[in-house]
Amino acid sequence: MQARLGDVVAALGGELHGDGGLVIEAIAPLARAGGREISFLAQPQLLPQLAQSRAGCVIVRPEHRGQALERGAAIVTADPYLYFARLTQWWATRARAPTPLGIHASAVIEPGAFVHPEASVGAQAFVGARARVGRGAIIAAQVFVGADAEIGEHSRLAPRVVFEHGCRLGARGIVQAGAVIGGEGFGFAPDAGRWVKIEQLGAVRIGDDVEIGANTCIDRGALDDTVIEDGVKLDNLIQIGHNCHIGAHTAMAGCTGVAGSTRIGAHCTAGGSAMILGHLEIADHVHISAATVVSHSIRKPGHYSGFFPIDENAAWEKNAATLRQLHALRERVRALEKKS
Amino acid sequence: MQARLGDVVAALGGELHGDGGLVIEAIAPLARAGGREISFLAQPQLLPQLAQSRAGCVIVRPEHRGQALERGAAIVTADPYLYFARLTQWWATRARAPTPLGIHASAVIEPGAFVHPEASVGAQAFVGARARVGRGAIIAAQVFVGADAEIGEHSRLAPRVVFEHGCRLGARGIVQAGAVIGGEGFGFAPDAGRWVKIEQLGAVRIGDDVEIGANTCIDRGALDDTVIEDGVKLDNLIQIGHNCHIGAHTAMAGCTGVAGSTRIGAHCTAGGSAMILGHLEIADHVHISAATVVSHSIRKPGHYSGFFPIDENAAWEKNAATLRQLHALRERVRALEKKS
Amino acid sequence: MQARLGDVVAALGGELHGDGGLVIEAIAPLARAGGREISFLAQPQLLPQLAQSRAGCVIVRPEHRGQALERGAAIVTADPYLYFARLTQWWATRARAPTPLGIHASAVIEPGAFVHPEASVGAQAFVGARARVGRGAIIAAQVFVGADAEIGEHSRLAPRVVFEHGCRLGARGIVQAGAVIGGEGFGFAPDAGRWVKIEQLGAVRIGDDVEIGANTCIDRGALDDTVIEDGVKLDNLIQIGHNCHIGAHTAMAGCTGVAGSTRIGAHCTAGGSAMILGHLEIADHVHISAATVVSHSIRKPGHYSGFFPIDENAAWEKNAATLRQLHALRERVRALEKKS
Repeated sequence: MQARLGDVVAALGGELHGDGGLVIEAIAPLARAGGREISFLAQPQLLPQLAQSRAGCVIVRPEHRGQALERGAAIVTADPYLYFARLTQWWATRARAPTPLGIHASAVIEPGAFVHPEASVGAQAFVGARARVGRGAIIAAQVFVGADAEIGEHSRLAPRVVFEHGCRLGARGIVQAGAVIGGEGFGFAPDAGRWVKIEQLGAVRIGDDVEIGANTCIDRGALDDTVIEDGVKLDNLIQIGHNCHIGAHTAMAGCTGVAGSTRIGAHCTAGGSAMILGHLEIADHVHISAATVVSHSIRKPGHYSGFFPIDENAAWEKNAATLRQLHALRERVRALEKKS
Repeated sequence: MQARLGDVVAALGGELHGDGGLVIEAIAPLARAGGREISFLAQPQLLPQLAQSRAGCVIVRPEHRGQALERGAAIVTADPYLYFARLTQWWATRARAPTPLGIHASAVIEPGAFVHPEASVGAQAFVGARARVGRGAIIAAQVFVGADAEIGEHSRLAPRVVFEHGCRLGARGIVQAGAVIGGEGFGFAPDAGRWVKIEQLGAVRIGDDVEIGANTCIDRGALDDTVIEDGVKLDNLIQIGHNCHIGAHTAMAGCTGVAGSTRIGAHCTAGGSAMILGHLEIADHVHISAATVVSHSIRKPGHYSGFFPIDENAAWEKNAATLRQLHALRERVRALEKKS
Repeated sequence: MQARLGDVVAALGGELHGDGGLVIEAIAPLARAGGREISFLAQPQLLPQLAQSRAGCVIVRPEHRGQALERGAAIVTADPYLYFARLTQWWATRARAPTPLGIHASAVIEPGAFVHPEASVGAQAFVGARARVGRGAIIAAQVFVGADAEIGEHSRLAPRVVFEHGCRLGARGIVQAGAVIGGEGFGFAPDAGRWVKIEQLGAVRIGDDVEIGANTCIDRGALDDTVIEDGVKLDNLIQIGHNCHIGAHTAMAGCTGVAGSTRIGAHCTAGGSAMILGHLEIADHVHISAATVVSHSIRKPGHYSGFFPIDENAAWEKNAATLRQLHALRERVRALEKKS
């Protein structure tokens, strides 16, 4: 694809310095961008790269305007990273072939399903009875949409998503390949050493502008629905148990698990491989580090962590062995204190 | 759906107090149940909710009969949670449309496969050569059943399950969407810095009444089979390595990993994100906490744990840094003890 | 299947002692192998099993030749485990029905796609526009290959793999069922409490002889490609973030996560459930234990670990509580040292 700088600024704003007719062919990091590429300076620590960059144009903050202009064309904007994000969207929209509207001949559409005439259903996809696919929605090849499910306007399901019966996705959502929305929650009653299944009679209700990663699973509720609020972003291979409630604009990195019936506030984040136990309440604006186990409710916004620090194996072995005696060690210190 | 209390008790037993003709339309938690909903009191700590509940009927233990009757209809039974589980099953059977028997026109059935006339094979499903699908089994849309595989009577594979060649599932099993049963185990021999694949010549053998979660993976064995015994319940996104043996009625929560050739006993449980290393033996009735790493065999029933406690980030940083000096700290305490 | 010992040695080499006409019907572990089975002795600690084994033939190192011959036929070779690996390959090639070449009638092949006449595309598979499937490649049933993707010669995609647009797989690769290659990386710019998507304009580039496990996810890069070098082996349920670079012949066990933009060297290993944070550099020949969190770059080859040791729950609770006071405990020791 090709675009002129003038077109970029006409679409996305910002203060252009340099030739609006300059043609760019790609977006690239500062370090490797060439004369027909556009780059951006978001992190102050990359400032030394700016002078050396061969980028045809750089997107910078007002305070870097001077240094940027010494080397060539620039777009000045308050938040270059945000500008870059919007540029990738503008770029992708122009670079990618539009998805053909309509229903592929190999798709199976069950009786009573409604697919908006301006939606797209790909090859070998399945849309169950009475399901609704909204205007502008894209159901990729091999997707499964269960009976009575709803896919909101302009939402997109990547290949091979399973979106089970009765679940709902709002507008402008994205579900990456292989995700399973609405599998049956893990609920059993013990009965003399055996497990008796609790049928999961709820569903999954997802707000607008939500993104769900590849092979991530969100279980349907037992009685009530599992709820994912507007703007939530979930990475790949995440497990959300039944009856969880994830607050708006919360983001979680890959491999994280949230056990059942936990309620997470809005604007939270969780690093990769975090594990949040069940039946907890997490306040708004709580940030959990990677690989941290949340074992009790958190009422106060803040940054919480807990993982064993990595070390050379021999050192770790010694420290881990001592850790198993830590309580006794404290008693020994206490005894010394009494004596001294 | 609608049901009369009398019908519930006729089907599931229990001692009915109140009008058997009362119609209920849903099952709901005590706190939000209304007059046309049935609820249950399983946890004593929820007892204060009982008096305030507006539920049309509550399921209670004998010791709560008096308090329950003060507020309206009740079903008295020894184990309300178990009764609730059975009620969800009864409810689901009546509420859900029955799966149509027979083979969908878009399914592909390979030569020599046997599908029982009272089984169901959904749209775009694939049943490999010589595979067997038993009476009452449900193969949902887009499922893959490999050659020579066997699906037992009344078992159900959710959409997009992959059940590879030669693997066997017993009766009344449930496999949630996206699970992969019988992928090739992770086995390689080192050869001068490269890895030489060990073909996995075994399969996966699963007993009766097993449930397997969404996107969970159970690898086929290298020479012998990987074995999952009767009544095992596995949540979502679990990894079971090749040649594992999981004992009867063991249950594991989501994101747990079990490395190859480990043998886990019967009636065990593992919390979410636990990691059980390979070539270990775990006795019956062992309970592993969430996020705990099992690094050696466990011969004694009991409850085992091991994860770093969560803390405010600044406190964790200090403690984690000190932890890397823990062995040295113990030596310092020892030195003080000698002196004192 | 049946094979004569003479044929095995003719194909794979080694020094045969015993009757080349002896027929074997399976490969089995020493402990349970019978007279028509072949076994191997790779780990010295299994030597006591050798004398008792009823195996028809055993594969042994030169130093065990004497003991092996006392009990029957043997193949002597420098590395029995490697010989075993090659034997499984030889065995599998002969035992398994060859995959039929050509394109199944139910597959969908988009315009401009090229499928080599000596490749195989299974039932209900999808091959996108301009994609290329090389000679000898096997695309199993229900696989999705996106537009402009490339599958190298003799590579094999198991059922229901999603291999997204523009990604490339080299020769002799294996991708297990349910893996998602080329999902969109997890990239967002914050904007006043909301997340603005960064479109992922890169792809995934995979070398030769790579194996990728079931339901594993490898995200496409934001601007550059995510790169997996030759000979890498990834187990099931692994997450590789966008813009990672995994060096040649590195192997990772199941449930491991690698966050975005991390560069891992060649010949590394990671145990199951390891978590490697983003934007790090890991040298060649680094070995990470299971469940270890890599939170900073590692410049030196070696073996690194860090997980909380498992204990009986009551002991763990005490030690974990004390751990939250560890820094204070060190200060108390310091105070005692000053006094003494």
